[in-house]
Amino acid sequence: MAAPAESLTRDAFLGGRLTLLQPAKGFRAGIDAVLLASACPAKPGQSVLDLGCGVGTAALCLATRVAGLELTGLERDAAIADLARRNADAAGIAMEILTGDITAPPPALKAMSFDHVIANPPYFDAARATAAADAYRDSAMREDVPLAAWTHLAAKRLRPGGWATFIQRADRLGDLLGAAEHAGFGSLRVQPIAGRAGNLARLILLIARKGGRGALELAAPFILHDGPAHISDGDDFTSAASAILRDGAQFIAPDLKVSVINCRHAEDTGRNVSGA
Amino acid sequence: MAAPAESLTRDAFLGGRLTLLQPAKGFRAGIDAVLLASACPAKPGQSVLDLGCGVGTAALCLATRVAGLELTGLERDAAIADLARRNADAAGIAMEILTGDITAPPPALKAMSFDHVIANPPYFDAARATAAADAYRDSAMREDVPLAAWTHLAAKRLRPGGWATFIQRADRLGDLLGAAEHAGFGSLRVQPIAGRAGNLARLILLIARKGGRGALELAAPFILHDGPAHISDGDDFTSAASAILRDGAQFIAPDLKVSVINCRHAEDTGRNVSGA
Repeated sequence: MAAPAESLTRDAFLGGRLTLLQPAKGFRAGIDAVLLASACPAKPGQSVLDLGCGVGTAALCLATRVAGLELTGLERDAAIADLARRNADAAGIAMEILTGDITAPPPALKAMSFDHVIANPPYFDAARATAAADAYRDSAMREDVPLAAWTHLAAKRLRPGGWATFIQRADRLGDLLGAAEHAGFGSLRVQPIAGRAGNLARLILLIARKGGRGALELAAPFILHDGPAHISDGDDFTSAASAILRDGAQFIAPDLKVSVINCRHAEDTGRNVSGA
Repeated sequence: MAAPAESLTRDAFLGGRLTLLQPAKGFRAGIDAVLLASACPAKPGQSVLDLGCGVGTAALCLATRVAGLELTGLERDAAIADLARRNADAAGIAMEILTGDITAPPPALKAMSFDHVIANPPYFDAARATAAADAYRDSAMREDVPLAAWTHLAAKRLRPGGWATFIQRADRLGDLLGAAEHAGFGSLRVQPIAGRAGNLARLILLIARKGGRGALELAAPFILHDGPAHISDGDDFTSAASAILRDGAQFIAPDLKVSVINCRHAEDTGRNVSGA
């Protein structure tokens, strides 16, 4: 679905370090893609595939933190794929965007392998979802491709020992774990993300290793907002959430007992990360 | 495996409300069974099946909190089943203990149905476990019966809309969710249990409804101990953990925003719960 130019917005991410064009209506990138990027353990110079990359949010956020990545994205909507190319160009980040479907990947992708795969699969079960008015929103939000197709393609395209990072609605936990294990992932780490301390998890990050043999780990929840309830429209992000969403920090799980590191590798990229 | 009388210990649970005989060596009931009992949402007068009941710890803890339950236990080790009968008698709690295997339940059980099933399936994967010296410990700790056999028997013996409550090591989360969904459970609620705030989950409680259609919920972790590390041998249970382990309280999930209720229905049981 082509998006006319007048229906685009230009939005700031990572405290202005990154500016992205995206459709004004329908599915829009939010904190999910930023959290996904923050949790990918890619190191400088490694290769990363973003499955269902949309306008490139997660991959470009990741490139803002980690220098010298070889980035590839797969997006089935040609107009959205084109926006991802424009966004990468505007950010000065090299990223190859392939147009194609998860269930029928283009031949070029089949010849490639990666150190990391990241993916933010659609959140809503097609069987439960009501039809959405907007076609892009519809395809991005409805699960017409089962989670297993995402995990299997991720496993196929990863090098042995490579890592996949997924973000998903918390109520899909069972489906995602089953799909990941069926695709041959192990050493699963489940990172719940909750709006506030004590609340049900809203999202889960799953970090999984192809062929991994380690036991599943269920981490303490990552909390987005301070306080017991949303009492104002002001910014009440926790300092850890703010470090990721505003400063582009790497996701450090609470149980790892490591201080949050802001703007890792920022010096290496040569870009001005403190400005904008 | 018959346990000679001299190898038994008599141990206090729920702050002395309940005293249980169990083998001095091998698998011994701990906080897992008490947490399991605390999380079962049984109401007075309902029927409860404890699969793999051991010496009766979970079922008898549950009966200490909830009055007038119809309790049934299934235990494959005849000597352990006999201890469960003695423990129930000593506590003045009516409980029928059937001797038999999860994979080949006795005919008497096949004619019964229940409002609730509780189970604490063995924690260790047979493929990974090393042989244990003690046969009872061996059978209780090694998973020679897959989790799916437990969830399927639970579903078969539950009335439509009945609830199953499982406790399991956190690293079996994926297996347990898959087994529960495959057996026809829905409305799954995953309750992580962590030693201390910020730590990886050690255990998970799964509360699931036969035929339930609600979305999976991943609750905030229940924390057993206060403080960042174990700095003394003293009692450092959180007040919520102490209410369950010492006072026999019902498990109230943090997100439910309900005060912990101690000794629910204690008056109704006619037993002296403040003594012992």
